[in-house]
Amino acid sequence: MQSIKVIKIGGNVVDNPEKLQQFLRDFASLEGPKVLVHGGGKVATAISKGLGIEAQMIGGRRVTDAETLRIVTMVYAGLINKNIVAALQGEGCNAMGLCGADGSLIRSNKRAVTAEGVDYGFVGDPVDFNLDTATALIDGGLVPIVAPITYDAENGTLLNTNADTVAQTVAVGLAQRYPVELVYCFEKRGVLRNVEDDDSVISSINPELYEQLKADGIVADGMLPKLENAFKAICSGVRSVVICAAERLTMPGYGGTTLSK
Amino acid sequence: MQSIKVIKIGGNVVDNPEKLQQFLRDFASLEGPKVLVHGGGKVATAISKGLGIEAQMIGGRRVTDAETLRIVTMVYAGLINKNIVAALQGEGCNAMGLCGADGSLIRSNKRAVTAEGVDYGFVGDPVDFNLDTATALIDGGLVPIVAPITYDAENGTLLNTNADTVAQTVAVGLAQRYPVELVYCFEKRGVLRNVEDDDSVISSINPELYEQLKADGIVADGMLPKLENAFKAICSGVRSVVICAAERLTMPGYGGTTLSK
Repeated sequence: MQSIKVIKIGGNVVDNPEKLQQFLRDFASLEGPKVLVHGGGKVATAISKGLGIEAQMIGGRRVTDAETLRIVTMVYAGLINKNIVAALQGEGCNAMGLCGADGSLIRSNKRAVTAEGVDYGFVGDPVDFNLDTATALIDGGLVPIVAPITYDAENGTLLNTNADTVAQTVAVGLAQRYPVELVYCFEKRGVLRNVEDDDSVISSINPELYEQLKADGIVADGMLPKLENAFKAICSGVRSVVICAAERLTMPGYGGTTLSK
Repeated sequence: MQSIKVIKIGGNVVDNPEKLQQFLRDFASLEGPKVLVHGGGKVATAISKGLGIEAQMIGGRRVTDAETLRIVTMVYAGLINKNIVAALQGEGCNAMGLCGADGSLIRSNKRAVTAEGVDYGFVGDPVDFNLDTATALIDGGLVPIVAPITYDAENGTLLNTNADTVAQTVAVGLAQRYPVELVYCFEKRGVLRNVEDDDSVISSINPELYEQLKADGIVADGMLPKLENAFKAICSGVRSVVICAAERLTMPGYGGTTLSK
């Protein structure tokens, strides 16, 4: 069976029109079935500011209140998603944009208030992936483009969801039926031994090395949740997981960091 | 073969949360395959104002400049579309939201500058409907929810499109393969003989009566393009076209105006 590529791009690509255009051209040129998961970028923040909506932060974390949910739904599932779809159609790639509510693709639970009393608001943690919907699209020759918005089936409401987690959910879900390759594209070439040196890419990481890298402080901050998602994928049936630079998508092996069990 | 219902709702329903919720409950309860096409509503105007973007009007017509296109894409294909999808999922209806770019559903030509020099901007007139995409969704048990945004395949750009025209395009396109019933829901109970009297619904209109109603000034303004779309549908293979009130969707015959050839 042909493997499916699940590619995730972050805000740094979404925010840069030239980078995005080049990335979409590369993505369109990839052979075989594929799925794109995209992040949000700074447009949502800019529009919130324009509308006079203050970003709510609790303990350094953004809180998704009702107004912010409206904005991210508009921007992620509307503006960004549909412009990516139209651009890919222009490249001859039969893209179909969707969020987690569409075809019930990703069902989430609204995150509970933490023991410390932190309420993240309308944030969803995925609990279910609809393989039938994904299969209907992929087998129909369509290329799903997934925005990081999921939904709560019980209340019929949308929820803001981390894009790395969405990519992991899609990859693990598809792995029930297909061989899946998950590629996290971001601003660096991979996990770097020295964050100042782009050529210090660690070519492969297993859980033991990961623990060592954390202990040594080489892997920290935003890299931690990304790697947690990556390891969760590789331990849940995804055949390969790579972290690499967006501009290396067409390079064999992506010149990035490969994860192993 | 089971017939497909194509239902269109306008801004008056979209703008009213209680009306919309009741409508979506009714829509979810309709038996058999179905498609929903929704209009825009006043949210786009409110958000444009909030962001300090002035609506551009030429000769009484709204012009879609680049900024306005960004707003309507966000609001129609993002905010409104995804909230409708999530609410329908909450009602047990497996909705899948899309705009014309998704799966290449509706390809448009950017409207040319008129002989009088009027440039409508990023406005699209549909030229092609992708029956394969629609069939893949419908046969996969999904209920397409279509936002009034289409796209120009050559340039890979989005285009603002009249929702009545989108509904007509979807209905005519589906009529190539299925028996189709098209229902335009709006704020009145149908075409009224006396606009002040809700009970003066004209139960059936054929082209001769339509010409008469136009000549008598009974049908005018916004009703004209709606009826032009309705007649185009009935003359292009759509089995039945009805214009009725949104709250009558579950009533037999919809208590509205039926068009005939």
